[in-house]
Amino acid sequence: MEQRILKPEPLTPAGFAPYGDVIECATAAEQRHINYGHTIRFHDLARLDLEKDGGRPLVSIFRSTPLERPVPIKVMERHPLSSQAFYPLSGLPYLVVVADRGDFDPATLKAFLARPDQGVNYQAGTWHHYCLALEGVSEFLVIDRGGPEKNCDEVFIKEAGFVVANV
Amino acid sequence: MEQRILKPEPLTPAGFAPYGDVIECATAAEQRHINYGHTIRFHDLARLDLEKDGGRPLVSIFRSTPLERPVPIKVMERHPLSSQAFYPLSGLPYLVVVADRGDFDPATLKAFLARPDQGVNYQAGTWHHYCLALEGVSEFLVIDRGGPEKNCDEVFIKEAGFVVANV
Repeated sequence: MEQRILKPEPLTPAGFAPYGDVIECATAAEQRHINYGHTIRFHDLARLDLEKDGGRPLVSIFRSTPLERPVPIKVMERHPLSSQAFYPLSGLPYLVVVADRGDFDPATLKAFLARPDQGVNYQAGTWHHYCLALEGVSEFLVIDRGGPEKNCDEVFIKEAGFVVANV
Repeated sequence: MEQRILKPEPLTPAGFAPYGDVIECATAAEQRHINYGHTIRFHDLARLDLEKDGGRPLVSIFRSTPLERPVPIKVMERHPLSSQAFYPLSGLPYLVVVADRGDFDPATLKAFLARPDQGVNYQAGTWHHYCLALEGVSEFLVIDRGGPEKNCDEVFIKEAGFVVANV
C-alpha cells in the first residue's frame, strides 16, 4: 500500500483552533504591564480544562527523543477528561500531529510545525501524537490532569504508513 | 543607613523548601518512561494550589526586563490565596528573592540564583520579589490563579536599601 505523506503547515492559532490553543505571546489577546513596568504579562493563553471529575492540575517536564525521519505516525492518543498543554523548553522546533475528535479517522490527520516559542494545548478528546521532538532531545513543560481515572485512549494505525514530510 | 547586601545562594529544593518547590528534572521524585521509550515524564514537580475559593489555573507568559545592578529590593509581594509557578524560557539564569511568610520581616530576606533549567513555585503567602531577569529580557511560563478575588499584597521596603550582590 502507498505511504501517505503529511506535509506540516506552520502552526497558527487559526489553523489549530479545531484542536486547541496555541500558547504564544505573538497572538495573545491580553497584555498587562505589571511589576512597575518591568514585566509584560501575556495573560491566560490556554483554555485549561483539568478539573472534571475531581482532577487536579499537574506540572511535569517531558524529555523527548526524536523519532527516525521521515517521522512515522503509528499511534495516536487522546485524553477524554482533560486538556493537555506543552510548552517547548529547548529552543527547538517540533512537530504536532492531530486528528479530528470523535471516532478516529486517519483521513483527518494533520501535521503542524511549531516554532520554539510556541506551545500547544490540546482540548479534551483531541487525537494527537505524543511529543515529536525534531532536532535533538527536547524538553517540554506539560500542564495536564492528575487523578486516578483512566484518561488516555490510544489508536494504532495499521494500514499503510503515514509519515510526516521532512521539514 | 547602611545598605544591606543579599548574597544569592544556589537554588536547591532543600534550601527553597520553606518557600515552595523547585521545578527541575534533576531532583524529580518520579520519572515515568512513556511514549514507547521516546519520552521520560518527570512527574508532578510542584504543589499547585490554585483552586481555593473558586480559583482556576491560568497559564501565561511573563516577559521581564532586568533591573539595574546591583539589583535593588524595594517591593515584595505575596498571593494569599494561591501558589504561583515560574519556569524560565530564555535559557538564562535569574534571581529569586523571598522572605518568610507571616508579617513581612526584612531580616528574613533571602536570595537564590536559579539556573536556566530550574523553575520555582511559590507557595501561597510566601513573600517574593517579582521576576528578576538577569542577563537580558527573559520570558517565563507562569502557572497561577484566575479569579476576581484580590490575591496580591505588596510591601514596600522604606528603610535603607537591600541589594542583591552581583553574580
